[in-house]
Amino acid sequence: MRRQNLAVVLGAVRAHSPLSRADVAGRVGLTRAAVSSLVDELIERGALGEAPATASGRVGRPGRALTVSDRGPAGLGLEIGATHLGACVADLRGEPRLWRRVERANAGRPAGQVLAEAAALAAEAEAEAAALGLCVRGRVLAVPGVVPNGSGGLVERAPNLGWHGIRLAHHWPDQDTVPEPENEANLGALAEYWSAERPAETLVHVSAETGIGAALIIDGRLFRGARGFAGELGHIPVQPDGPRCACGARGCLEQYAGEAAVLREAGLARRGLARHGDAVALLAERAAAGHAPTLRALDGAGRALGLALTSAVELIDPDGLVLGGAYAELADWLLPSVRAELAARVTVRPWPPEALRPSVLGRRGPLLGAALTTVRRIMADPTLLPAG
Amino acid sequence: MRRQNLAVVLGAVRAHSPLSRADVAGRVGLTRAAVSSLVDELIERGALGEAPATASGRVGRPGRALTVSDRGPAGLGLEIGATHLGACVADLRGEPRLWRRVERANAGRPAGQVLAEAAALAAEAEAEAAALGLCVRGRVLAVPGVVPNGSGGLVERAPNLGWHGIRLAHHWPDQDTVPEPENEANLGALAEYWSAERPAETLVHVSAETGIGAALIIDGRLFRGARGFAGELGHIPVQPDGPRCACGARGCLEQYAGEAAVLREAGLARRGLARHGDAVALLAERAAAGHAPTLRALDGAGRALGLALTSAVELIDPDGLVLGGAYAELADWLLPSVRAELAARVTVRPWPPEALRPSVLGRRGPLLGAALTTVRRIMADPTLLPAG
Repeated sequence: MRRQNLAVVLGAVRAHSPLSRADVAGRVGLTRAAVSSLVDELIERGALGEAPATASGRVGRPGRALTVSDRGPAGLGLEIGATHLGACVADLRGEPRLWRRVERANAGRPAGQVLAEAAALAAEAEAEAAALGLCVRGRVLAVPGVVPNGSGGLVERAPNLGWHGIRLAHHWPDQDTVPEPENEANLGALAEYWSAERPAETLVHVSAETGIGAALIIDGRLFRGARGFAGELGHIPVQPDGPRCACGARGCLEQYAGEAAVLREAGLARRGLARHGDAVALLAERAAAGHAPTLRALDGAGRALGLALTSAVELIDPDGLVLGGAYAELADWLLPSVRAELAARVTVRPWPPEALRPSVLGRRGPLLGAALTTVRRIMADPTLLPAG
Repeated sequence: MRRQNLAVVLGAVRAHSPLSRADVAGRVGLTRAAVSSLVDELIERGALGEAPATASGRVGRPGRALTVSDRGPAGLGLEIGATHLGACVADLRGEPRLWRRVERANAGRPAGQVLAEAAALAAEAEAEAAALGLCVRGRVLAVPGVVPNGSGGLVERAPNLGWHGIRLAHHWPDQDTVPEPENEANLGALAEYWSAERPAETLVHVSAETGIGAALIIDGRLFRGARGFAGELGHIPVQPDGPRCACGARGCLEQYAGEAAVLREAGLARRGLARHGDAVALLAERAAAGHAPTLRALDGAGRALGLALTSAVELIDPDGLVLGGAYAELADWLLPSVRAELAARVTVRPWPPEALRPSVLGRRGPLLGAALTTVRRIMADPTLLPAG
């Protein structure tokens, strides 16, 4: 009960700060004495700060303004992609305080090597966060792979990294800082959901990096599926007799709207351009310059994506669809054909075109979601923070 | 609190009856006095019966056996299909006590006429139930159409009946017995979930009557979608450039695995056979007799269904898929090709063929689900029953 009350008080301050203790008591419906005791504990745990009152013009003893701490407790997000490593630290207000991204060809390298480099980046980020007065209280790693429910730190499969059955603790140099793995698409969806002003409560969030994933927010909660495999949008069949996919099936969405397919259609893979630098930036640059094959390739990818998303809308009936990850940066060229396809195919329910929108976070979503996971957990249970 | 305790006691008796009051106290962790008071109330409300003890062989005053009442409170399920009306009454144990099915060509007739006939059937069923000592405490009507969330009794669209925006209360003769409409696919899925020994907690249940619908059970609860449109499996595109569907889109599953499509492929529609009697029984009869065009038609329908279900598995990651409604009666001929298609296409996760199975309830599912809806509500909140 006290745990819950701590969370309620912390949440009220976060939503409405600055508030005085009296303001909080008024908002949460607890006595002033009870709130004061809860506030004291939250200050002791480092979750709240209390400043001298701003001049409020009110009569009586001025309240001292409470705010969620921008020092102290923080969440570390890490990311391993096929071509990069990333780190992000967010404070308890949910503000990202530092971002790191280094380009690395991770695909096919030994997992131990990649994880050692990720651990080094994590240590640097924690040191830098400490210099800002932040103390990392939880670590989550975004991976482009399958993390089964209750996996205990196992990444079952990350095809674009070449990982099979990688247990993070076996490879992480420091057993005190082993992060918890989570699928990047799930984290991107959560970040988007947490960041939106008025989020759709039932949401399909598409994440494209090298592969295509999706995540489902159902009634305000991440739905991971019976075993953690939900949201495999990339392997929805869009042409039953289409080309063979790496997964073994035919005509999967990835064969039409995955990075390799789009580059190939745009005539860019052949010339080896894609190997140098950022394929998404390259596609955006070519499209912006009016390069006809690139425009055709993105239009085709959008149609295939619209077809797969039709299945998602028919089955799940979401409030909203979000194009995240790399697709967010290509949205100018993808949105028209995705929306056209949905308009033509989703006919048995109202489906306004604006229900599909690009992510506001883009490729930073999964990393931010990883950092915010810890923040959200602390907000829900401040006793996770050590007292004193 | 008392409401919840009443439900706990009633649930314990249902799961383990016969139990004495002492047995119940032992099971639910309440004092014997508290349990006795709750039991008294449940008897007064007609939910429990108490018989003389069966010889238990135990020392001490023999407990009197409590059982969930097979008289008194009951749920009425009704169903309007394109070609029939149905009624079912279930007692509080969840046992169906009477079934009525009358063939009626409902498609295209004025909704008021159809609903008046359904009301007459309902009145007959209630009278018959009364003769069994049952008293109907809630009425739910299964319709092959869209019932938006919180619709207040509105059936937004039932294409196979020709209904648009039908509010039941406007047409039902007796305002005291207006049923609550619900989509038949949802009710079929719930009935299956409630009836299974060890149900899959995340389940996609396919219902085929004239059209094809599906319903999603997610973490043990019916998921209706953001607005009540979830599970429109029939309009998943299985061939992007396939034939035009009644919904306006192209290549929807219904064009390959819907009743009309299968009859046409089997060469049965042309001869006008389908108009006379039960199309599903006709297909089953022909298939059992080895009629090659029927076997080919069912094989093709199964492949299309497998393709659409691949999308469902990739997106939702269910524990189980159930073929219900008419498909259950055709399962012998559909299962091989549905399973083959899933085996070929679902490759990124384990997918045992037995995860797809025919419904045990078949075409009775929606009607039973309608009757059980009231029973489940009473079990969850016995104060819905009038005292005394």
